[in-house]
Amino acid sequence: MKKVILISFVLILMFFCYANSEETGDDQLLEILLKNGTITKDQYDNLKKKSEEKLKEDTEDFDFRISSKGGIEIEKNDGSFSCKFGGRILLDASFYDEDKNALGDGTEIRQARFDTEGTLFTDWEYSLALEFGNAEIDIKDAIIAYKGFAPLSIKAGHFKTPFSLEQMNSRKFLTFTERALPNEFAPDRKIGVGANIYGDIWTAEAAFLGEFFSDDPDDEADEGWTAASRFTLSPIHSDNTIVHIGTSGLYQIPDDDKEVKFDAKPETHIMSVKYVNTGKIKNIENLFKYGFEAAFLYGPFSVQGEYIGCYLNRDDNEEDLDFTGWYIFSSYFLTGESRNYKFKKGAFGRVKPVHKFGAIELALRYSTIDLNDEPNITGGEEKNVTLGLNWYINPNIRLITNYIFVDNDKYANDSGDVLEEDDINIFQVRFQVEF
Amino acid sequence: MKKVILISFVLILMFFCYANSEETGDDQLLEILLKNGTITKDQYDNLKKKSEEKLKEDTEDFDFRISSKGGIEIEKNDGSFSCKFGGRILLDASFYDEDKNALGDGTEIRQARFDTEGTLFTDWEYSLALEFGNAEIDIKDAIIAYKGFAPLSIKAGHFKTPFSLEQMNSRKFLTFTERALPNEFAPDRKIGVGANIYGDIWTAEAAFLGEFFSDDPDDEADEGWTAASRFTLSPIHSDNTIVHIGTSGLYQIPDDDKEVKFDAKPETHIMSVKYVNTGKIKNIENLFKYGFEAAFLYGPFSVQGEYIGCYLNRDDNEEDLDFTGWYIFSSYFLTGESRNYKFKKGAFGRVKPVHKFGAIELALRYSTIDLNDEPNITGGEEKNVTLGLNWYINPNIRLITNYIFVDNDKYANDSGDVLEEDDINIFQVRFQVEF
Amino acid sequence: MKKVILISFVLILMFFCYANSEETGDDQLLEILLKNGTITKDQYDNLKKKSEEKLKEDTEDFDFRISSKGGIEIEKNDGSFSCKFGGRILLDASFYDEDKNALGDGTEIRQARFDTEGTLFTDWEYSLALEFGNAEIDIKDAIIAYKGFAPLSIKAGHFKTPFSLEQMNSRKFLTFTERALPNEFAPDRKIGVGANIYGDIWTAEAAFLGEFFSDDPDDEADEGWTAASRFTLSPIHSDNTIVHIGTSGLYQIPDDDKEVKFDAKPETHIMSVKYVNTGKIKNIENLFKYGFEAAFLYGPFSVQGEYIGCYLNRDDNEEDLDFTGWYIFSSYFLTGESRNYKFKKGAFGRVKPVHKFGAIELALRYSTIDLNDEPNITGGEEKNVTLGLNWYINPNIRLITNYIFVDNDKYANDSGDVLEEDDINIFQVRFQVEF
Repeated sequence: MKKVILISFVLILMFFCYANSEETGDDQLLEILLKNGTITKDQYDNLKKKSEEKLKEDTEDFDFRISSKGGIEIEKNDGSFSCKFGGRILLDASFYDEDKNALGDGTEIRQARFDTEGTLFTDWEYSLALEFGNAEIDIKDAIIAYKGFAPLSIKAGHFKTPFSLEQMNSRKFLTFTERALPNEFAPDRKIGVGANIYGDIWTAEAAFLGEFFSDDPDDEADEGWTAASRFTLSPIHSDNTIVHIGTSGLYQIPDDDKEVKFDAKPETHIMSVKYVNTGKIKNIENLFKYGFEAAFLYGPFSVQGEYIGCYLNRDDNEEDLDFTGWYIFSSYFLTGESRNYKFKKGAFGRVKPVHKFGAIELALRYSTIDLNDEPNITGGEEKNVTLGLNWYINPNIRLITNYIFVDNDKYANDSGDVLEEDDINIFQVRFQVEF
Repeated sequence: MKKVILISFVLILMFFCYANSEETGDDQLLEILLKNGTITKDQYDNLKKKSEEKLKEDTEDFDFRISSKGGIEIEKNDGSFSCKFGGRILLDASFYDEDKNALGDGTEIRQARFDTEGTLFTDWEYSLALEFGNAEIDIKDAIIAYKGFAPLSIKAGHFKTPFSLEQMNSRKFLTFTERALPNEFAPDRKIGVGANIYGDIWTAEAAFLGEFFSDDPDDEADEGWTAASRFTLSPIHSDNTIVHIGTSGLYQIPDDDKEVKFDAKPETHIMSVKYVNTGKIKNIENLFKYGFEAAFLYGPFSVQGEYIGCYLNRDDNEEDLDFTGWYIFSSYFLTGESRNYKFKKGAFGRVKPVHKFGAIELALRYSTIDLNDEPNITGGEEKNVTLGLNWYINPNIRLITNYIFVDNDKYANDSGDVLEEDDINIFQVRFQVEF
Repeated sequence: MKKVILISFVLILMFFCYANSEETGDDQLLEILLKNGTITKDQYDNLKKKSEEKLKEDTEDFDFRISSKGGIEIEKNDGSFSCKFGGRILLDASFYDEDKNALGDGTEIRQARFDTEGTLFTDWEYSLALEFGNAEIDIKDAIIAYKGFAPLSIKAGHFKTPFSLEQMNSRKFLTFTERALPNEFAPDRKIGVGANIYGDIWTAEAAFLGEFFSDDPDDEADEGWTAASRFTLSPIHSDNTIVHIGTSGLYQIPDDDKEVKFDAKPETHIMSVKYVNTGKIKNIENLFKYGFEAAFLYGPFSVQGEYIGCYLNRDDNEEDLDFTGWYIFSSYFLTGESRNYKFKKGAFGRVKPVHKFGAIELALRYSTIDLNDEPNITGGEEKNVTLGLNWYINPNIRLITNYIFVDNDKYANDSGDVLEEDDINIFQVRFQVEF
């Protein structure tokens, strides 16, 4: 009698466990019980059906998981669907040690951004990034991508023109507050189609793009267009050692106004003066831009550099023009971390401090841009030296301080708006949270 | 002795199962064990209390489920609360086969939108839809609705004026890239109150509305207002066969400037020319708009059409005016799907491909708008024929291609801005993801 | 033999339960089974390892819970991470009983807002609030805060200057549709750093702030700055009885234009006339603002008042100026609820109706602002009496009706733009959903 009670308990328990099981699919127990004659075929069928229904319901409704690595992500367990929300807030304060011109110290929200991205039907991905500024909103990424031919990925939308290591690197993960001076040559996001692919030690990306999103859609001239590509090679990319080289090329036909302008602030954002400034250059037939990049990392030490050039082909009666810029920087983590190389992107990502108090990084950069092509264009030449100190409080929060020594030449007068040879120093602080 | 061990195992297991049970509420096992004397009353009470506490905690904190049908949705299991995030990205490219006027080919993000909607306290629903454009943001839906008197629903906020089948149909689910020419007569969203209700074969919606949200709130003239309603009848709406007819009526008092203007692009968005254009019509006392709509669907085949008219009642010394437009289109799914009729909304929804490679739909549309009421107003007349080919890659991603033959009359000159009788062809492609 | 089968069932079940257990960490059963010799050491190790792996996986991936108290919140169970989405839609209609000037009745979306806030690494919190208006977007809160020294909290970002009870109170929870007239003196959000702390019966907040976010970052004058603080004392704050007093002080150096302007609409938003208006006051050296606040609550009855003054210190050759304002209001819940005092914030929060049909609150306010400092500045004086009736339909949805009697003096002419002594009445309705 006791055995009967025990057996019934066991059966009840068994049913119970089944009723509560969340993702079993394991029907072995039922098989054994049926085989041993402990349960009848009817009971077996009934239990089996219940188990399957439960499983099905779970799969459809509850089969999601949530994670918080770099933004909140809700993901279907079979990987067919996911949705991730992220964002960033970058708070800046800049102080200008003035020389010849008045420059306004100040504070600003450098970026406030909301991102969402995710997977649809396993092979498709979407991405939408919105940036909020002074009463304005900018659509940054707006991408639909197909990953079904992995490692080839195809995309359409509004995305970064593939060109230059520093440009492709998310601002969230830059070593300094602003990109280096030659970044002025790197194009911004445009609307178009693109593809990227990678092998064991290389990546390649190419894109064909139309207008900037911010262009006037009511302009009745046909749009200009751009073809761009970037190729990177990383023969070594272990945890401890990275060797990375790359090159970019870009060909652009401007739209019917045939104008282009290059100007840059001295690696700061709050002040408005752009010492180096070509003004509008007219009669552009086409542009060719080229870039070379290299990075080397060994444990906490890394060095990175780029050379970017821009060649402007103008109408017959105008001289062609050639501008260049380059930078090199080195960084060292006092706390032993390494910069986080993302091989498949050919760029650097989030640093994860190993100590409870965070990670400390020292950095030094030299950068220069030359917008003079005398005697035709004298946009000025600038040389900056930057000292950087980063405190990665945790993987999502960072305090960045930069001290910049700016050396302008005799043509660097913001197209005549300010006094030239203005050799200022800049101290700027950024406090950023991103996830 | 063995039995004692077994019983203790069973008890431990039982407790274990309870501790892990997620939403049982089933206390039968405990009852049986108590009745059989296997556990004492104290143990029973203790276990029972633990079970109830666990259940309570689960109900409050974890009683949510996540689903991904058309956007990510987080829903409380009792239906009292839900929150859904959705969005869309529509990427367009248009190519104009010019005739007499210059028209700028180009690309654009036609729409980038972020939506959130959900349920509060079972009977209340909210909806907020934001559209991002050139540095601007538009509030589309901003609605608070009460569903406690179902099938009657009452709402307040910024929402679509109930008028016309095509207008009420979400852009996400349109057969062609743009709505037909007579959609120029359909009013946009405004702020107001509304109600809708449905029976077995009919739906009705009415609304009383104030200004457009985009109106200047600092204008010291009292706002104009609009009363609008739409009634649909669908005697047959099985999976395979739909018969739908409907009518809309709208009465509008403009605000104190008493002006109105009708103009339309040729079912394209990137170019800026609006061939048919009345210019500003002054001294409007009130407007009356009326529409008739019909749709028939049989399996993969469907046909849909609308006739919309607008009557402008002007001051005594000015002639009253009358403008009209209509369209008819037919579509056929080569892959066997049907357009998805949402009876309660009196509109069409998301098409779900049955094949792995997606669904293919062919479509043909004729549309016309007549903005001439000679001799007073000669805004022009336009007739368009559109060939459409849709590839529904999956329920959320679609590639739309349209080829449009545009036939303008001698008055269609964008109020004198362009040459008339400009008979162009348009090829446009849209790639859209929406969820 | 039966016993062997039973034991094997129990073991299978046990394994089963383990496999399904979600957050046990309890290995006691395995220990007992090992000790009793029911399972071997190998089996024990194997099961133990499986159990630990499962637990680890659960902890990382699934250890989140969702709640819906005031917005959808996804929270890691250990409290180290959370993410909350909220928002609000405020729909307004205003009707003006005109006296001497034309005032435009109308409707508007008073606010549409999307908020996200959360916790990162236990001690850090972020907050981002976006407000959508006429094609514009405003960043309201953009805050990074450190709570590791609780009860001290330190923050940086764009946040409300700490000053005045009514100003610090979220608009969502105001008793009337708009803040009282003297709120014109309260500063808005700015970029800076701040700290707040609380004891058993007191709270203190201080901040040092730079420019408004909406200031032109390209202005080459150095920014102005503000130091502000607020201190509150609440010797009694039980559920039923609240005694609250507080004081605020603010010192501001304007930027180089040295101008300031005070003006206010009569506690309404849709019309554009600001009867009391000083126009631009020039040559401001610095400003000092001070406020006194008090609130008393006993069950459904409450009374609240503030006095705010502003002292403008001008250049030697200009007279210093002094403006003041104050309000007092009382409210009574016919349905027995109390206003919800949030002691740590020194402000009021969400009212939760106890009845199924919601809560009803009657309110009466007197407010006044005096922008005259004769003979130098005659900006006008206004006195308003407001009758309020609130229907809290549920904790998230509220209908607010206000009737305002406006009494303007002979100087209240919007800096000469309208006729003075315009004594109008205002009826306004707000329907709001917030979560």
